[in-house]
Amino acid sequence: MPAIITLTTDFGVKDAFVASVKGVILKVNPQAQIFDISNDISPQDIWEAAFTLRTAYSHFPKGTIHLAVVDPGVGSGRKPIIVVTESYYFVGPDNGLFSLIYLEAERIRVHHITSTHYFLPNPGPTFHGRDIFAPVAGWLAKGIPSGNFGEEITDYVKLNIPAPKITPNSVEGHIVHIDRFGNIITNITYLNIKALFSEGMELGDAMVSCAGREIKGLRKYYAESAPGEPGAIINSSGALEIFMFKQNARTALSAKRGDAVRIMVSR
Amino acid sequence: MPAIITLTTDFGVKDAFVASVKGVILKVNPQAQIFDISNDISPQDIWEAAFTLRTAYSHFPKGTIHLAVVDPGVGSGRKPIIVVTESYYFVGPDNGLFSLIYLEAERIRVHHITSTHYFLPNPGPTFHGRDIFAPVAGWLAKGIPSGNFGEEITDYVKLNIPAPKITPNSVEGHIVHIDRFGNIITNITYLNIKALFSEGMELGDAMVSCAGREIKGLRKYYAESAPGEPGAIINSSGALEIFMFKQNARTALSAKRGDAVRIMVSR
Amino acid sequence: MPAIITLTTDFGVKDAFVASVKGVILKVNPQAQIFDISNDISPQDIWEAAFTLRTAYSHFPKGTIHLAVVDPGVGSGRKPIIVVTESYYFVGPDNGLFSLIYLEAERIRVHHITSTHYFLPNPGPTFHGRDIFAPVAGWLAKGIPSGNFGEEITDYVKLNIPAPKITPNSVEGHIVHIDRFGNIITNITYLNIKALFSEGMELGDAMVSCAGREIKGLRKYYAESAPGEPGAIINSSGALEIFMFKQNARTALSAKRGDAVRIMVSR
Repeated sequence: MPAIITLTTDFGVKDAFVASVKGVILKVNPQAQIFDISNDISPQDIWEAAFTLRTAYSHFPKGTIHLAVVDPGVGSGRKPIIVVTESYYFVGPDNGLFSLIYLEAERIRVHHITSTHYFLPNPGPTFHGRDIFAPVAGWLAKGIPSGNFGEEITDYVKLNIPAPKITPNSVEGHIVHIDRFGNIITNITYLNIKALFSEGMELGDAMVSCAGREIKGLRKYYAESAPGEPGAIINSSGALEIFMFKQNARTALSAKRGDAVRIMVSR
Repeated sequence: MPAIITLTTDFGVKDAFVASVKGVILKVNPQAQIFDISNDISPQDIWEAAFTLRTAYSHFPKGTIHLAVVDPGVGSGRKPIIVVTESYYFVGPDNGLFSLIYLEAERIRVHHITSTHYFLPNPGPTFHGRDIFAPVAGWLAKGIPSGNFGEEITDYVKLNIPAPKITPNSVEGHIVHIDRFGNIITNITYLNIKALFSEGMELGDAMVSCAGREIKGLRKYYAESAPGEPGAIINSSGALEIFMFKQNARTALSAKRGDAVRIMVSR
Repeated sequence: MPAIITLTTDFGVKDAFVASVKGVILKVNPQAQIFDISNDISPQDIWEAAFTLRTAYSHFPKGTIHLAVVDPGVGSGRKPIIVVTESYYFVGPDNGLFSLIYLEAERIRVHHITSTHYFLPNPGPTFHGRDIFAPVAGWLAKGIPSGNFGEEITDYVKLNIPAPKITPNSVEGHIVHIDRFGNIITNITYLNIKALFSEGMELGDAMVSCAGREIKGLRKYYAESAPGEPGAIINSSGALEIFMFKQNARTALSAKRGDAVRIMVSR
């Protein structure tokens, strides 16, 4: 079965960056099947790439190689790495891009890529996505063992990811992402909320506050919410989400990433 | 030959939605070849999706499975369906998305998808594209008969699609789409116009009015029109189109979807 | 091995244009592997397409067919052509799109496509990408010799591409592209700059002027430059590039394509 390689980058879809990466992969490994996770990550936004990659990676078949390049430090001393988990490979710069993978995966091995014979000849200083990460992903997809690319390291970079603050009656988190519909995604999870509810309580007993608005109860689906009113829901990724049915909650609430969100119950 | 699956969604190209759908398809059916029709449909714009799908679907090989998800009612009572025509399959929510297919196809069969064992386990409330439609498309592409997914229904949802108003000397329709070039597409067809012309009349004898502008005659190609002047043409989809050579007719004419367009002949 | 076809167009990613082209290719040749170089070329911007295609094409495997359609003259007298180089095929309109290929390739053969039996039946006047170029690329990918599509021609269209002006102490070029990061790409090459430097000179001895700003020295990587200060670098395509570390140089410098850029050394 041909290997699958995915791309998560801030290269955009207008310039030739993404195609150059794909061409190089195909030159190394014409059998590779390449899929985009997103090439429209905001320039240099490592967190956005980390979040987007985390949202999608586990839906791909076991063995998939996830190539991620948001790389402001390209050409400087930051390390190129391969991350190996029980089911997937990840290839990219060691700048925190894979932090959410480190949190979720059971077993992790991180290799510092130093075997330059897997690179394109004479890599330039501004595009390691093409010159280093693409051919490494291509060779990895051909079955070269991860150990061949370089030594294992343990001092890889992790982003500081604040966890929600939990009290007996509330969970306080923040906005981690806002999607194209304007839906506001938080770092408050299904499990956080489940722990908050005591027996006999119902979804309607919760109160969510976000961007100065109080939202009563949790919805079971979007259309349940009245037009023009923000609603809260546990979304299909298991996260607390603030939405507005057929409208853009981001705009309506002037919400932005990092803003505080709280869910409370009164007993 | 591997099955082809296309996507028409309002998921955008920035978030992880599209990749999650593709990953799920590939987990079910690693042989599937997946192509995007458009993932940049305006949020919740069912008509735009219906129009875009109709423009492209018949150019794909026979047997292609067209997955379309613009789904504001996700998680509510609206039905998931499979539409089977003589040459294609369509998978998506029953909200009118496939209305133009119903108009065009000779024989139609619509199945209400109820066999939950083809879904991902525990589908969430906000992303049936990933949890229901993607795996169903994947299984369909593996050869599971459409009847296995659920009973045939006849009360599927159709959008109200107004036809052009025809008089002996004119056809009055409206703008159904404006493309990225600013070209204005109408629901007036080649056949409507052919019926309007009597023997001996020429393209120059027609008068088109759109957004308060009178346009004399029909052009044979874009470059035939003078710079800065709107032109009218029967485009390659057989529809009356208003354009501006190397310029954006939408902007120049302040035109928008739904606006009236009329073509007249004087005898 | 299945043939690879790439697309470089101004069709955008929202409408059904690109999918229609891909569908037609697949109907002719279901084995074709199709990759996007860019479908987001600015409408009618032949230069941008030429530049983008040139940046990516050579990274694809030998034998790749590069389909490029930015075609304001569609339906008029401009010729459809196939360009054959030692390693690649190019298919598109004869309007200068392939000018940079003509400059770079060692041996070139250009065929005027006239064998209409390779077209879709009854090509329309506004979408030769779908009706002519797509099926031609599909048949070419199936092994039909380029000579079968039409006679060789020598009077194909070339854009006027001004070369940098070289003096003993300076090279004066212009901005040829600005990428999604706001990085400013010039037509001044690594070889131009190498010729400017005499023995013992160092990168710091160069002075670059762009958009009214003087930039001292050349950087080895982006992160070497101070925040908020424009830097100059020889990028991974071997071109002089003006950037701003983690910022957008286009915005900060109000630079636009065509603006003059100069590099000087003082001896």
